[in-house]
Amino acid sequence: MNAKLLTCLPYVNHVDRAEGAVQTRLTKRLGIEHPIISAPMGTAAGGRLAAAVSSAGGLGLIGGGYGDAEWLEREFEAAGHARVGCGFISWSLAQKPQLLDMVLAHEPAAVMLSFGEVAPFGQRVKAVGAMLVCQVQTLAMAREAVAAGADVVVAQGAEAGGHGVERATFTLVPEIADYLSGAAPDTLLVAAGGVADGRGLAAALMLGADGVLVGTRFWASTEALVPPGFHTAAVAADGDSTLRTTVVDIVRRYGWPAAFTARVLKTRFAMDWHGRESALAEPATLEHEEARFANAFKAGYADEACVFAGEAVGLVRDIAPAGEILGRMVREAENLFGKASGMRST
Amino acid sequence: MNAKLLTCLPYVNHVDRAEGAVQTRLTKRLGIEHPIISAPMGTAAGGRLAAAVSSAGGLGLIGGGYGDAEWLEREFEAAGHARVGCGFISWSLAQKPQLLDMVLAHEPAAVMLSFGEVAPFGQRVKAVGAMLVCQVQTLAMAREAVAAGADVVVAQGAEAGGHGVERATFTLVPEIADYLSGAAPDTLLVAAGGVADGRGLAAALMLGADGVLVGTRFWASTEALVPPGFHTAAVAADGDSTLRTTVVDIVRRYGWPAAFTARVLKTRFAMDWHGRESALAEPATLEHEEARFANAFKAGYADEACVFAGEAVGLVRDIAPAGEILGRMVREAENLFGKASGMRST
Repeated sequence: MNAKLLTCLPYVNHVDRAEGAVQTRLTKRLGIEHPIISAPMGTAAGGRLAAAVSSAGGLGLIGGGYGDAEWLEREFEAAGHARVGCGFISWSLAQKPQLLDMVLAHEPAAVMLSFGEVAPFGQRVKAVGAMLVCQVQTLAMAREAVAAGADVVVAQGAEAGGHGVERATFTLVPEIADYLSGAAPDTLLVAAGGVADGRGLAAALMLGADGVLVGTRFWASTEALVPPGFHTAAVAADGDSTLRTTVVDIVRRYGWPAAFTARVLKTRFAMDWHGRESALAEPATLEHEEARFANAFKAGYADEACVFAGEAVGLVRDIAPAGEILGRMVREAENLFGKASGMRST
Repeated sequence: MNAKLLTCLPYVNHVDRAEGAVQTRLTKRLGIEHPIISAPMGTAAGGRLAAAVSSAGGLGLIGGGYGDAEWLEREFEAAGHARVGCGFISWSLAQKPQLLDMVLAHEPAAVMLSFGEVAPFGQRVKAVGAMLVCQVQTLAMAREAVAAGADVVVAQGAEAGGHGVERATFTLVPEIADYLSGAAPDTLLVAAGGVADGRGLAAALMLGADGVLVGTRFWASTEALVPPGFHTAAVAADGDSTLRTTVVDIVRRYGWPAAFTARVLKTRFAMDWHGRESALAEPATLEHEEARFANAFKAGYADEACVFAGEAVGLVRDIAPAGEILGRMVREAENLFGKASGMRST
């Protein structure tokens, strides 16, 4: 038995047999049925989506995005009595820190922090009994998350839609699993980036994750707050049809730290400006493009805007209710695990 | 049962129980014991490594690289009577097409073609009874490989060491699996990029692959033709310590097509020149750096050179015999599959 096996097994040992469920340490700790969390996608992940995911046995997260208090209150209301959580863009939250108290007043099951320092907020989250979920994109960030008291580390690969860095899910997950098994064995690990079906769920658990965080596939659900034009573009796209870029942030005047780019569909807007970022940033151009983009983004004119989507968009062939998506994932993973047991010789 | 499950199951259905083996369609078709192929890494994957992998129950591939006839003859001789294959850089092979006949005379089990057109060579490979293995980095390339008669498609994610494109293993594999299940159900699928242990093997099979192609982990073997200084640098590196760049090709004056970059360690040389490619390409600078680089590359002065390595270098903690590496992978995957069966509820 080799060292890597030893470091990996603890994650899988906690798996139990249950009726119609894939159970892991994450399901036990969060008190949920399936180890599936929906990503807190800004503007798209409202209360209805979060509630649908939680009602189906996962955990739904409302997308705090760039911090619109009115939107957040409305979406928590839309979630009704469902037990949901909320996610923030940390560097943006630092500019409106009062939003955290507003969200904590709703007694979220978990608060997820991504893209920035955890320290200013982490202890406040834990103090009210919510799970502190920290999304990281490198091994170095995983170390920082553990130091800040993360209950759950989300290892996000660059195949994910929206913002991220460059490392891939396939290597980031096992490497962080090894790190956690030594440094913080009680900290759970969730894989994000590229997970859109039961194959992805099964693979993530094999890589050492305790569960998955799913963005693009839930974005392509009937409950997501996404204009129909964007959904149509996503269903038509294959996995070759995305790129990582900064043009979507330049045109919206968001001051993202340089480490982060965003994965979007290769729409006409994205392809027109990617590689010509300085030209887009020229004041007169930007003013014109900003208004045009905002209108297209709201109306769902995909080609005139940017459409956040991960490489897993190539696995998305329909827009379905979130509960049905979750059920498919679990059943497919269960079936694959059944087949896998037949591969063993011992 | 959903559509994705239906497209995925055929790959797993072909799995049988065998003593000490993970069997798939790939092991049956290639007549090998374990679904593990070693990557044909130029300069590093010589005959000893290929023979060691084949002797351990996988399939070893000699690295044809940029086509040095003398090196190839020597390495086929070093492989002895082991049943091995060979891999070529297709755009380079097009400049020295006679090398293919030279290799085919050795009756290789398989010929792998990467990074360029398959059509000029594919039928000659198949005509002598060798398996035609085509490495692709996008769904579009997978379509081309099938059209050219590929027996095996290797889906290589950008986390891989050495040359590649941008898509990730985690999404590329299931998307190509779905494509093949409809368009070419007898064509096998192998996952490459990020696979360095049994977790990666198990995950790749869950994603829909029939086997894996392993580069970095076998590069870090005692049989690989790698200077000790490079091995030391790799063991010390974590997965955050690599980047994709063109500087390694500029300094060696290789005319790689623009679509391809290479993943290397963040050595001083790589970090000095990455982002300053034009400066490196200036004739006087290039002449000076070329000689210095060539010397460092040969001598194993990692910081003065580029060291090809994938993100999975963060999972490499020792330099071990290839047969031992392969055995660990299989045992770890078998154990994980055993644990996975306990997760099923049905």
